[in-house]
Amino acid sequence: MRMSDSYDTATLAARMTEYVPHALALGLKLVAVGQGRGTMTVAWREDLVGDPDTGVIASGVVTALIDHTCGLAINAAFDLPAPIATLDLRIDYLRAAAPRTGVTCEAFGYKTTRSIGFVRAEAWDVDRGDLIATAQAAFMINPRS
Amino acid sequence: MRMSDSYDTATLAARMTEYVPHALALGLKLVAVGQGRGTMTVAWREDLVGDPDTGVIASGVVTALIDHTCGLAINAAFDLPAPIATLDLRIDYLRAAAPRTGVTCEAFGYKTTRSIGFVRAEAWDVDRGDLIATAQAAFMINPRS
Amino acid sequence: MRMSDSYDTATLAARMTEYVPHALALGLKLVAVGQGRGTMTVAWREDLVGDPDTGVIASGVVTALIDHTCGLAINAAFDLPAPIATLDLRIDYLRAAAPRTGVTCEAFGYKTTRSIGFVRAEAWDVDRGDLIATAQAAFMINPRS
Amino acid sequence: MRMSDSYDTATLAARMTEYVPHALALGLKLVAVGQGRGTMTVAWREDLVGDPDTGVIASGVVTALIDHTCGLAINAAFDLPAPIATLDLRIDYLRAAAPRTGVTCEAFGYKTTRSIGFVRAEAWDVDRGDLIATAQAAFMINPRS
Repeated sequence: MRMSDSYDTATLAARMTEYVPHALALGLKLVAVGQGRGTMTVAWREDLVGDPDTGVIASGVVTALIDHTCGLAINAAFDLPAPIATLDLRIDYLRAAAPRTGVTCEAFGYKTTRSIGFVRAEAWDVDRGDLIATAQAAFMINPRS
Repeated sequence: MRMSDSYDTATLAARMTEYVPHALALGLKLVAVGQGRGTMTVAWREDLVGDPDTGVIASGVVTALIDHTCGLAINAAFDLPAPIATLDLRIDYLRAAAPRTGVTCEAFGYKTTRSIGFVRAEAWDVDRGDLIATAQAAFMINPRS
Repeated sequence: MRMSDSYDTATLAARMTEYVPHALALGLKLVAVGQGRGTMTVAWREDLVGDPDTGVIASGVVTALIDHTCGLAINAAFDLPAPIATLDLRIDYLRAAAPRTGVTCEAFGYKTTRSIGFVRAEAWDVDRGDLIATAQAAFMINPRS
Repeated sequence: MRMSDSYDTATLAARMTEYVPHALALGLKLVAVGQGRGTMTVAWREDLVGDPDTGVIASGVVTALIDHTCGLAINAAFDLPAPIATLDLRIDYLRAAAPRTGVTCEAFGYKTTRSIGFVRAEAWDVDRGDLIATAQAAFMINPRS
């Protein structure tokens, strides 16, 4: 994700959902946020399906959720929201999600330097202990371009 | 992406766009397909925006486009469509896309083994020579679960 | 790493260190192994330095240690050693190691399917809580070629 | 790799090989360098083997070669050598190298910003067209810590 700083006064929850048109369109919801951590979820919907034979949610939706939740976790590591942008993101898909089931993602920002934030994330459908995807990402903090 | 094989007789173009609900919802379009290669595009739309201050398309949309185009390229490496699923995907974001501008992605499947397909992709907004993102991915071919 | 199965009867510890010429040459040592987990270490040596101005160990040595420890963790997930090979490996470097200091890595195989093992790793120099690198990897299990 | 700037006056070739103890120890050689591009090679040696059953070179050696060649390509994008450090590196291993055979890597720095350099690399054993590994990496330029 890429986030500017002109809406600093909004709550972090609102900034991650209502203010971002694509997050609104996908129906991303904030579940929890803490120091350097965040959890977001997306409910299953017909138009989010990737495989019409099975009704499984698209990997692109899972990726968008993970990217967004990683941005939330990086933001949650700072007192004031900083402009950030995804620098690189790697996602491993462990298995397909269950048919007609939403996905939840928890991300953890485990290190920030002056210019880079490092974050890990896990996504699951039904059971927090039975993951569908994991991710490792680096975000630019205060990107100039 | 994850694709089953029950709709083998559809044209590859139709399978990548009309048959996949989330591809339809995002408005992904197939531009070109060749031996182990494919190009897809997404037009700018208000509900695909990631940063409301700038009108730049969301990185999650770019990622979904890249994932989908990589799947197209892997499929285009075979005579018959095979069931495939993204195993892992890494994306580097070089810069923000131009405001209110769509994105195009070209992917190239450069190696397939019995079980894995390897693919690279590039995405740009206006100029093919001025990229916004690059990706390297591995797909499972004939995944069982 | 890539490991065949002809030396099945060796202890896992010996297989990861004494039997692999490059592991021996780098001086990799096994610290601990458990169910799906492993820890290995490399001591600082003059010929492992990457930056002669600072005496910091080379990132290539850190990468080799991480790759090897990930293979150990995948092996430790099975009762019998399986032939394995690194499929892909992503490493994030958080900071330089301390000068003239060795590195330790712990890896955790968090998911195995019939053909793929997924693993995460962390590396540090002095303090387990102050990482120098993190990694996320996928290994082929029983690769044929 | 991580490279300081105190030996600015050395030729780039010497800086990448003779001045770096671990590059010297592995026997890395510079083959060619051009604008934003570089090629390096490592000859097969008994102590670089990863699988003693087959005599195949260790993936850790391939990774070190790729990391180093990526650093060369980033350096070759500038008029004066800049301090650089690997930020993250992803490597896909397509197949095992041939037994008792060295490896060559070519890297291409395709984009640099003020703080980040993006690079891709390919590695092969015998035939430039039959790759053993591909990589995509981001380097910090002028890292402070």
